[in-house]
Amino acid sequence: MFYIIDIIGTIAFAISGVLVAMEKKMDPFGILIIAFVTAIGGGTLRDVLIGETPVSWMVNMTYTYVIIVAAVLAVLFRRKINYLRTSLFLFDTIGIGFFTVVGVEKGLSVGLHPIICIALGTISACFGGVIRDILCNEIPVIFRKEIYATACILGGLTYFLIRKFPIDENVVFVIAGIVVIVIRLLAVKFKISLPTVYHNK
Amino acid sequence: MFYIIDIIGTIAFAISGVLVAMEKKMDPFGILIIAFVTAIGGGTLRDVLIGETPVSWMVNMTYTYVIIVAAVLAVLFRRKINYLRTSLFLFDTIGIGFFTVVGVEKGLSVGLHPIICIALGTISACFGGVIRDILCNEIPVIFRKEIYATACILGGLTYFLIRKFPIDENVVFVIAGIVVIVIRLLAVKFKISLPTVYHNK
Amino acid sequence: MFYIIDIIGTIAFAISGVLVAMEKKMDPFGILIIAFVTAIGGGTLRDVLIGETPVSWMVNMTYTYVIIVAAVLAVLFRRKINYLRTSLFLFDTIGIGFFTVVGVEKGLSVGLHPIICIALGTISACFGGVIRDILCNEIPVIFRKEIYATACILGGLTYFLIRKFPIDENVVFVIAGIVVIVIRLLAVKFKISLPTVYHNK
Repeated sequence: MFYIIDIIGTIAFAISGVLVAMEKKMDPFGILIIAFVTAIGGGTLRDVLIGETPVSWMVNMTYTYVIIVAAVLAVLFRRKINYLRTSLFLFDTIGIGFFTVVGVEKGLSVGLHPIICIALGTISACFGGVIRDILCNEIPVIFRKEIYATACILGGLTYFLIRKFPIDENVVFVIAGIVVIVIRLLAVKFKISLPTVYHNK
Repeated sequence: MFYIIDIIGTIAFAISGVLVAMEKKMDPFGILIIAFVTAIGGGTLRDVLIGETPVSWMVNMTYTYVIIVAAVLAVLFRRKINYLRTSLFLFDTIGIGFFTVVGVEKGLSVGLHPIICIALGTISACFGGVIRDILCNEIPVIFRKEIYATACILGGLTYFLIRKFPIDENVVFVIAGIVVIVIRLLAVKFKISLPTVYHNK
Repeated sequence: MFYIIDIIGTIAFAISGVLVAMEKKMDPFGILIIAFVTAIGGGTLRDVLIGETPVSWMVNMTYTYVIIVAAVLAVLFRRKINYLRTSLFLFDTIGIGFFTVVGVEKGLSVGLHPIICIALGTISACFGGVIRDILCNEIPVIFRKEIYATACILGGLTYFLIRKFPIDENVVFVIAGIVVIVIRLLAVKFKISLPTVYHNK
């Protein structure tokens, strides 16, 4: 279950990378690299921070194969995906939902404090997109006004709340991931954002 | 002693992160993330480079609590801090002073060469600010014309020079940190900067 | 052999860092930092990803000495190097050629899959330049239209192809490195680049 979720998130992020890279009119290798970095960036930082090296995509070839296939298909069927382009954020959102939960779970597996697990989940989910945006010279999505990291943090909290009930572990997984996705979808649909904090000099 | 210095540096950097993030009119979570990244960025890179994982803020909750409290207080009392705003660089400077020494000490504890220890101290001190500036779309302070990394390097050299004398270890710590702070303060006050090197094509 | 190649790549990258930093009119310490980051950035990421810590430049002082000497000489003789400036890319190219092979070899030494070894070689070769360009506020060279990462990938493939023949290991090393260099030189000379992939909305 854990594993399948990880793969779904990887595919979603790889496609979101391809879409951003194509918008920047990159060449095929550039597109592949951005797809790769977006898909594995968050998980790589997660693994490096907790000391799980060589990082997961280096020892498990599935990620590499999945990213290459997803990137090639996304390029070939770019006209079809275009209909979904206004929902580039959909892929992004599915990715952060699932990656948050995977990150939380990894943190638990090495015995970290719940707050740190939630931070680790948020890092896993957001960092791939941050690198993608920095490499593509965009202001990172995470710092534009939409709810983004906030959704991850709330999803992580949900995970630890419902985990106390006698629910199957896989169900806890899926519910927490869906909470992240729904919060972000609702926030974007209803243009909900947190107020900014500043003051006049 | 080591530990208290680390916490003081963490608070100083967290506040400097809050100030930059508020200037960018970020939402509360954005501000918290920037405060966090600024405060733990340098130490995280330091730990990753020497292989001390999970990195320190993940296994010691004090950092997290201190950063959250400092960030919340800095946001609440932003009007008061404003009087210090022209001295945003003050917090930055206290942070780099103490973090340089902590980094040098960590390098020694894993048996690295003094030159590498000084490099590690400079990285610990400067990298949090570099990430903060990159995420906030500013040119990193470190590469603007002021003395910055130079102060860290000179503080690190001081550490190894005075360490040969029969002085209490804690005193060595504090002196080296203060050297960094004073050099940077003087450099900014008297607008001292190194000459640039270039030539006409 | 492995070691000498690593040092040559380090020198080439340090000089390329000095040239970019001088163009940005940085002060001497800024130039030294950029030279350092360019020279050790790729290898550092490589070591962190596979878990070889403390990273190599921290335990082997040769890198540090070589970078400092190369940077000082490059600054002193900047008028001479200027004649080569139109070939800043030459140093860059020698660097990526040799670093690719070193990265591939390191991957093999920890038992990684050939595809991952090629990715690791490409990361080792390209990441130093990417950090250099990000810190200097340039769009990373790797994402400008020239052949760059592509050359590394093809050099890595060459390595695994010719390795099957009964050729001395050192020769395999050099041939693969030269393949990277020649592909990039030819691509720049004849303005060969991959077509970009995008489509009108």
